[in-house]
Amino acid sequence: MRLRNNPNALNILLENNDLVIENPENYKNNFKSLFNNDNPIYIEIGMGKGDFIYQNALKHPEINYIGIEKFPSVLVSAVNKIKQNEVPNNLKLMHYDAIELNNLFDDNTIDHIFLNFSDPWPKKKHAKRRLTSSKFLDVYKKILKKDGFIEFKTDNILLFEYSLVSINEYGMILNSVNLDLHNSDENIDNIQTEYERKFSKNGPIYKMVISYKNDEK
Amino acid sequence: MRLRNNPNALNILLENNDLVIENPENYKNNFKSLFNNDNPIYIEIGMGKGDFIYQNALKHPEINYIGIEKFPSVLVSAVNKIKQNEVPNNLKLMHYDAIELNNLFDDNTIDHIFLNFSDPWPKKKHAKRRLTSSKFLDVYKKILKKDGFIEFKTDNILLFEYSLVSINEYGMILNSVNLDLHNSDENIDNIQTEYERKFSKNGPIYKMVISYKNDEK
Repeated sequence: MRLRNNPNALNILLENNDLVIENPENYKNNFKSLFNNDNPIYIEIGMGKGDFIYQNALKHPEINYIGIEKFPSVLVSAVNKIKQNEVPNNLKLMHYDAIELNNLFDDNTIDHIFLNFSDPWPKKKHAKRRLTSSKFLDVYKKILKKDGFIEFKTDNILLFEYSLVSINEYGMILNSVNLDLHNSDENIDNIQTEYERKFSKNGPIYKMVISYKNDEK
Repeated sequence: MRLRNNPNALNILLENNDLVIENPENYKNNFKSLFNNDNPIYIEIGMGKGDFIYQNALKHPEINYIGIEKFPSVLVSAVNKIKQNEVPNNLKLMHYDAIELNNLFDDNTIDHIFLNFSDPWPKKKHAKRRLTSSKFLDVYKKILKKDGFIEFKTDNILLFEYSLVSINEYGMILNSVNLDLHNSDENIDNIQTEYERKFSKNGPIYKMVISYKNDEK
């Protein structure tokens, strides 16, 4: 999701360093110290306006959540929204590029990765930028724990078709796939994103849960 | 697809032995002799009323087609329909159970397999009967040539979701997947089945093209 550029965005993020991690590199390989506990760490890559990860954090205080967003302007809108209420201790946000996450998180340290309504990059020449392309699957493979999962939701049919082929080609395990999430039994536990609430009337929401083969980890 | 049982079905099939293979076992490992040529052999498993394979046979005289149907009564309705017109030389039908196909076709002899709108067997305890379960994937693996493909179409969302997980778990290649065939570019070349024409208004038609890894064949 892109918003109009906010030239003051980085300043606003600095002012909210109780929620936004100021220098993620300072916590390199030591993200547990951020939360002062040993709880599992779930991350959302491309968290947009942040409602999904905020709702998750409220629902599961026993899990630590880190929301990651590439665009400072987008992160600012999440900060403004979350700060309207009390900020849960188990939620942090940061401004970072997913492709660089190996520089930040140690191998086998992340318990769960959420990818929600990622940019579909519809042009074929941009396929490598899609968050389910092999370059990104390489990144997740390193940081994810052996028994960790990736949950991916989208309303974009071409991105979902591409992703099914991509994860199969990569040799990942397809633990489950749902081709109409909102009209399935699984919807009871589904936490919706802002985008999902707005656009799910136009067509089905697709979801897959994937993981890496343990013998390859 | 099931039809009311036709007690005279087997007699009708025998009377039409120009189109229906009378004793498939007679051609065991020698199906080329049926067609008197070396053209590729494409089979459809569960051919129902037969319009799909008939249209294929008309469109591609350079390919031999064998339609396979488990239920004699269903096969009779296909015979009656096809025989309203001239029967193409490259089309044969037979009454046979897919799980037994290894007894009929030699290894690596079939070029292409079509599975169209197979019985979804919705109950979990019947999952092994689905034509994309591992037991059937074992059968296809043996008879399919190294560079052969399987095309699978259905409107049944749960069967398609199951099949995506099943073929991934089996280690097959997902060459392509289409989650709304009739509204995609691929629809130009799509030959519809009778069922597909009738029920595609109710929701999307799903399609996958799959194959086996060559080093495993």
